[in-house]
Amino acid sequence: MRLAAFRRTDDPGGTRRVGLVVGDGSGWWLHPFEDGTDLVELLAADPAAREEAADDAARGDGLRPDDVVLLPPVQPVSMRDFLTFEAHVDGMERGHGNPGTPAQWYDAPVFLFMAPHAVTGPYDAVPMPPDTERLDFELEIAAIVCRDVRNVTPEQARGAIGGYCVMNDWSARDVQGKEMSLKLGPSKGKDFATTIGPWVVTADELDGCRDSDGFLDLKMTVKVNDEPVGTDRSGNMGWSFEQLVSHASRASWVKAGEVLASGTCASGSLAESWGRNGKLVPPPLQVGDVVEMTIERLGTIRNVVGPLEESVAAVAPARRRSTVGGRLEASA
Amino acid sequence: MRLAAFRRTDDPGGTRRVGLVVGDGSGWWLHPFEDGTDLVELLAADPAAREEAADDAARGDGLRPDDVVLLPPVQPVSMRDFLTFEAHVDGMERGHGNPGTPAQWYDAPVFLFMAPHAVTGPYDAVPMPPDTERLDFELEIAAIVCRDVRNVTPEQARGAIGGYCVMNDWSARDVQGKEMSLKLGPSKGKDFATTIGPWVVTADELDGCRDSDGFLDLKMTVKVNDEPVGTDRSGNMGWSFEQLVSHASRASWVKAGEVLASGTCASGSLAESWGRNGKLVPPPLQVGDVVEMTIERLGTIRNVVGPLEESVAAVAPARRRSTVGGRLEASA
Repeated sequence: MRLAAFRRTDDPGGTRRVGLVVGDGSGWWLHPFEDGTDLVELLAADPAAREEAADDAARGDGLRPDDVVLLPPVQPVSMRDFLTFEAHVDGMERGHGNPGTPAQWYDAPVFLFMAPHAVTGPYDAVPMPPDTERLDFELEIAAIVCRDVRNVTPEQARGAIGGYCVMNDWSARDVQGKEMSLKLGPSKGKDFATTIGPWVVTADELDGCRDSDGFLDLKMTVKVNDEPVGTDRSGNMGWSFEQLVSHASRASWVKAGEVLASGTCASGSLAESWGRNGKLVPPPLQVGDVVEMTIERLGTIRNVVGPLEESVAAVAPARRRSTVGGRLEASA
Repeated sequence: MRLAAFRRTDDPGGTRRVGLVVGDGSGWWLHPFEDGTDLVELLAADPAAREEAADDAARGDGLRPDDVVLLPPVQPVSMRDFLTFEAHVDGMERGHGNPGTPAQWYDAPVFLFMAPHAVTGPYDAVPMPPDTERLDFELEIAAIVCRDVRNVTPEQARGAIGGYCVMNDWSARDVQGKEMSLKLGPSKGKDFATTIGPWVVTADELDGCRDSDGFLDLKMTVKVNDEPVGTDRSGNMGWSFEQLVSHASRASWVKAGEVLASGTCASGSLAESWGRNGKLVPPPLQVGDVVEMTIERLGTIRNVVGPLEESVAAVAPARRRSTVGGRLEASA
């Protein structure tokens, strides 16, 4: 089952609604669920109850793509973005002159928390953020958690994953590079936009798309201005989503409405090519470029880079404190 | 005004309520606000309306410390933790054999997003997390945002900060060290607990505590088992909280209910001493240790390190993918 969040085109300040997606490709349309339906609750519902709600919805009138604006299918209560594609890590490291994937990568799946309020809809324009001449995309697959869990095994985690969608983790590489030198990871380099969508495909729909180890194995592709620039398969993740949820839940809450993403797949970003090519080829994204990402069975998100966002001025450099004998002393 | 979140001691599954704190030190008590009162909304309210609500509350019966369990004053919709104390950065860098604060640090305040569901109450026990032999604390001051803002100047940001509290950003240094080698910052090293409290002191109460540049200047201290181990002043931050909100809001939403923290003050963690001393002195926290943090005007949080949390097993190492000619290839 495919579940979308939308507002009606003729209702700009419109209410967030949930709809059942039917049809294929550009031929899709939406059947709204009852007012007040919550997408994450639908994911957590008993499958029979969800089917019944969907049957009810399907009896109503459908809305065509022009009738609706698709919204991010979830307003995440939190987002964790992992680093699970070995070949991406390998490429990025080689780009920095290092010998490839660090041994440490294999031990456990690291992640960072992401800006939960930066999610944008599957066809929204993404304004050019300030301070960057190296805007990039990251092709990822994301899981939507539908139950609160803590200390669950991968087997138990399976029931907490309600569905999956496509994700573009937009990245300002020059901003992020400076920030990461201070060891806390990227901050402004990634907090301006993360696109998720076009809708959530429920986990039960994808049972036939698992490999012999139980990993979801879906083809992922990204185009810029209709030119293919990257492709990989989700089966190349180093850990399954069930393992990611289990790891995240170790002595920590993973909550319903949380989004856990795979991290960038191999060739799923320009930066990896910049590293391999030793120059900015393909070029960084410019205003007007269209980035289109498709994952088999999950659908397509497509976003144009909009004009530079008019932003508040950058803050002043740090106020310096007293230095005593070459070493800073707290003046308490 | 001091605003606390609490449940009644005699109501273990109890409703979250908001109370006005009166009295001092161990002599404090609470006057509950009307049922359904939201702490962040109170922070955002017109001061006169907030005073009126407080006057109404104060007419009711008070609850003594034994009658209540204080909860985290806010369930953050998101948390950003900055790195604003130059002397802390200097100490940590020297501990890693580096020459001190990197030039990059002065340019702009970096931050990381934190686990919003890991917040714990001001007097809660914090279970020992798995996998660590180097549990540490971090003494920080935190601001509570009460209005949604985007692209605001520091001057405009001031009205979006509802109040302040004490924060302990618990850290498993050995776990975090391994994770940070992969450049995304810490993940499991910090997602198990962050203590905030004991209550929120409204920003207007602290107008007299600003230095000539407008920085909040409050004495911060931390004790372990009643022994003082660190002290600093919030006036040693490199940026004011208004600047932090402005920076965070640059081309990004900062939402009501978000928590922005200063990062660790100088001598506000054991790791800084370990770096300076070249050995684990003072020793890492052990089960039974009590960490007490006090910030002038904001109050005291005090937490015992509880027994090791029984956790799910660690996930298996990464599944390795095919390597072609010494370089990994996506098999798409």
